[in-house]
Formats: sequence, C-alpha cells, structure tokens
Amino acid sequence: MADNKEVLDATAHEVWDVVMVGAGPAALSAAVYTTREDITTLLFEKGVIGGLAAITDWVDNYPGFPKGIAGLDLAENLRLQAERFGAVIELGEVLSIADKGDHKELDTTSGLIKARTVLIATGSDYKKIGVPGEEEYYARGVHYCATCDGAFYRDKRLVVVGGGNSAVQEAIFLTRFASHIDLLVRGDSFRASDVLVKELDKHKDKISVHMQHTTDEIVGKDNLVTHVVSTNKAIGEKVEFKTDGVFIFVGLSPNTAFLKDGKVELDEIGLVKTNHELETTIKGIYAAGDVRSGATMQIASATGEGATAALKIREYIDDQNMGA
Amino acid sequence: MADNKEVLDATAHEVWDVVMVGAGPAALSAAVYTTREDITTLLFEKGVIGGLAAITDWVDNYPGFPKGIAGLDLAENLRLQAERFGAVIELGEVLSIADKGDHKELDTTSGLIKARTVLIATGSDYKKIGVPGEEEYYARGVHYCATCDGAFYRDKRLVVVGGGNSAVQEAIFLTRFASHIDLLVRGDSFRASDVLVKELDKHKDKISVHMQHTTDEIVGKDNLVTHVVSTNKAIGEKVEFKTDGVFIFVGLSPNTAFLKDGKVELDEIGLVKTNHELETTIKGIYAAGDVRSGATMQIASATGEGATAALKIREYIDDQNMGA
Repeated sequence: MADNKEVLDATAHEVWDVVMVGAGPAALSAAVYTTREDITTLLFEKGVIGGLAAITDWVDNYPGFPKGIAGLDLAENLRLQAERFGAVIELGEVLSIADKGDHKELDTTSGLIKARTVLIATGSDYKKIGVPGEEEYYARGVHYCATCDGAFYRDKRLVVVGGGNSAVQEAIFLTRFASHIDLLVRGDSFRASDVLVKELDKHKDKISVHMQHTTDEIVGKDNLVTHVVSTNKAIGEKVEFKTDGVFIFVGLSPNTAFLKDGKVELDEIGLVKTNHELETTIKGIYAAGDVRSGATMQIASATGEGATAALKIREYIDDQNMGA
Repeated sequence: MADNKEVLDATAHEVWDVVMVGAGPAALSAAVYTTREDITTLLFEKGVIGGLAAITDWVDNYPGFPKGIAGLDLAENLRLQAERFGAVIELGEVLSIADKGDHKELDTTSGLIKARTVLIATGSDYKKIGVPGEEEYYARGVHYCATCDGAFYRDKRLVVVGGGNSAVQEAIFLTRFASHIDLLVRGDSFRASDVLVKELDKHKDKISVHMQHTTDEIVGKDNLVTHVVSTNKAIGEKVEFKTDGVFIFVGLSPNTAFLKDGKVELDEIGLVKTNHELETTIKGIYAAGDVRSGATMQIASATGEGATAALKIREYIDDQNMGA
C-alpha cells in the first residue's frame, strides 16, 4: 500500500465516499466490499489494526477455518484483503464527527477530513480489573468472553470474577466445560437479577461462591495460570484459589468517547444505536461490530455486519447521486 | 463423523436442542457456535451442503481470505468446522414445522423429529430464465449477483437480462466495471421505478437498452461465454450480442414452501420476517441468511447472522431451563 498511499493520502480526496472509524474486523470487512466497488475508503485506527481479533491468541469459531486460526493471522488476512482492493488505513484518531447535510466533517489527528458517509466501527473493550498478571496472561489464561474461550477449559478449574448479571450468567454457562468454578464477588451481595442468583443455586455442585473476595493478583508459571491471590475482606485474610484460567466479567467499555456531543444516539451503556439497516440516528452515518447496541462481541457477527453496512452505504451513495 | 453419527442419528435424541433447516453458510456457522457449547444440533439439507457458496466458482469478498477462495473449498471448510464440534448433518427434507409450546415438531423425510428450537436457514435461489447455456455457464460467465461477481468484469462487455428494479439498478451499478452493457428487456416497458429509469438515461454512454428482446440462448466457446442469442420481438428477427458475461436479474425464489401453513410470517416475496434478535413470529424459531427478510445475499452476512442466531438460541434454551 505504500505506493498507493502517496496518491491516496487522507487529505488528497476532496470528499471521501466513506471514512471508517476503526480498523477491526467490522471495518476491514466493510472496506473489502466498498473498495471492491470503487467506493473510496479511508480507515482511521488509533490502536491495533484488526482490533480485538489481533490480540486474541486463537480463534476457533470464525467460520471458514475448520482448525481455527491465530487471531493475529486472521487480522492480517483481513487487512491484506481490504488493502488488496484499495483501502487506505491511516494511523490516527477521529476526535469528532459533524453532520454537514450532504457530507460529514471529521476532526482528526491528521486534520479535517470530509466524507459522504461514515462507518463507526471502533469496537468495545472489556473492562479490566487492573491487577498484576491480568495483562501478562491476557488471552493465555485470562479471558473476558465465555462464548469465545470457554470451550478451551473442558474439565479444568476456573476462577470467575464479578457479581453482576454477566458474571453470574457466564459462570453458569462455563459449567458446561469446567470441572469446578470459584466465583469471586467483591461486594457483599450480587448485583445480578434474582432469577439468575436463584439459578446459580442449582449449580452448587460446580460453582463455589465467595462473597467479599477481592481479586488481587493472577499468578502463573511457565506461561500457564496456576492460581489467583484474593483477600477475604470479611476476615481480612489472604486466600489462594488454584485454577487453570480466569474469566473476568466486570463490564464493557464502548469506544464512543468521540461521540460525546450526543448527536449520534447511544444506549445506556454507551453503545451506538442503529436501525435494521445499521444506520445510526444520523443519516449517512452507520455503525457495525462490537460498538453497536446489540452487538454479540463475535468476529463473525462483526464481519457480517461490516458487509451489510457496506451494501447500505453503497445504496445511500447511489440514492444521493440520483438526487443530484 | 461416521462414528459419531451412529450414536447421534436424527431420531436418537428424544428432543434435539436445535434443528437447523438447511446446511448453507448461515446454518453451518450457527452450528459451529451451538455444538461448541454442547447444544445438540441436527442440520437437514435437501440439496448441496454449503448452499449457494458451494456452487460459486470463486469468492473474493468473504472476509479472511485475502486472495479469495473457491466456493467449494469455503463450503467444505464450513462443513468440517461444524462437524468438528459434533454437528450432525442429515440429507433429507423438512416438510413442515409445528409449534408444540415447549418444543417444536418437524415432519421430515426421516420421520418425526422433536426440537427445542429451530433455525430456518434454507436460503433463496435466484430465479432462472431457463435457456440453453444458462446452467452450463453458471458462475463461469452467467451470474445473478452484481456485488459478488461484478468486479470480475472490469473493462469487459456484459449483457444484463431483466426489466425490473433490480435489473436496472444493477445494470447501473455494473457500469463501474464494464466497458459496455446491453440491457435486454423482454416486455415493451420497464417494471422499474421512474426514478431508476430516469437514472438509467444518464448512463447512455455505457448502457444500450433493447426493449422487447427475449434471451434465447447463452453461447460460449472453450468455457468462456462469447455471445447471447436474442429475438427482437418487434420485428421478429434474431440478433446476437457479443459479451464476456451475462447477469440475470429476474427475481428471488426463497426456499420457504415448507412454511406454507403461514404460522411463521413471511414478507411479500416469501422471505421469513424476523425481529432484531433474528427470531421469527414464533418463539423459539429463528431465521438467518438468505431466507431472511432483509437478507443481503452475501456469505459474510449469512455466517454473521448464523453466529448471532446461535447466541440467541442459547439464551432461549437457558431461559427455558430457568423457567423449568
């Protein structure tokens, strides 16, 4: 792309057909579609190209790879495919988007950029608890998605951290695989629904609940997690939980701070609302992938939504052309 | 799977967790998700495993394969991946689905089968015009999807067949690639909207419209399409159009005949209506892929919807368990 980029740098176009905010699976998939149809496409990425997929150790459930694929390889494949047809990826940040009627104006770290349409695909991050070992063992013993990584723990011991709906729900779900689960709840009660807490009771044989237990450190040896250091706050004593892996469910953090002006409507946890055509509350601005309200946090769903959004963006541009 | 199948044949389960109708990309993707979570999964396929993907020559836009992949290989990958985690594929036909409240009953060519949930993923077929050469050159010169295959015709001549909205819209779209397009319309007027017909007028330089021209035969040599034989009905004379490819847009034919009892609601062209969770008008029955109202006819969208539907099916089953 180096050659191409000299011609097609971010400011070279008077107005880009589409600017995509983010370069994870949703945006890269959308870019394959748009660029293949000669829709000029610029992607802005402030972190890692490939998004969460790129920092996932192994992906077993992305359709098309029967033996699974390394997250980094899948991310690289997606990047190469988007660039093959002419997508331009700019490393930088979009600070805000203004709707100017027939076009949008993006304030970015690379200057002011005009676009006919925008695709918001900045994803969401899993909230971290910020303890030693959490980053070191990320995706290799420390996980945030049970659907993605639970199946790697058949007949293994697990620690689950959290006290809300998702922690309880996913702990129950993980009993499908794990031989035993220690559920560490920081507070002295659950924030989960009564129905879920009642259901938890049915899984006493596999799940031991530890209230008022903080998670202090995740410890391992030879690249494998061995135990979790915790404090029993009720009696002020340190405890160790032997485990093969840790699942942390303390919430999602959608990457939507740049939408703080509120014109693109967000849901209660800050995810972008869309209609069934993946259009946001502003015409010509679309959203796909993990940043979208209702997102499943699955790569397959993200690339699928990227493809759908690309077709809707093309229709929008075609309709605009006809109006002209 | 042969070994597995002896144990897990279609009638062995008292009640399957999910029966999927169809074994194309949407169902196979969903099956990867469900089986990986130990949700017992049976797929019924009356045609080709892999659906339309399996009979597509080359797929350039399925995210994850930077150089593209043969449709047959992608279909085989999807099948292997679903079977890896225990999906059972039965060759046979689902004749009807009855809602029995806590479970569904499927009347099939393999007998009566019970399921807690059903995923309808039977896809849609493109309507054929039924002329000599159409089947012979399928996907190798004769196409039904401009988004999928238009980009293979950069600077080539094309014939487009049809007189409705999609034919006119896609002919205009194909001017991005083709050097010249002959648009053959059987009737003496368009069935497309006035806006589209007006827009068509702007593309006179690339699109020649031929009203009252039937498409009689698609002719080729050495595996390449060379021309289309047509009859000008106004004067009753045979005409030949030189071309590198033919795109036919005469409508979609959703595979929903088995839903004729009307309990699962269909849209005006026979596609299955769903809500944003991909649930149909009957609780516990979901739909994904090309058979769904609003479908994009893209493999990426189908596999993405399959993944999303699988998660919703899991939630439904979990909720049912809690209610018990």
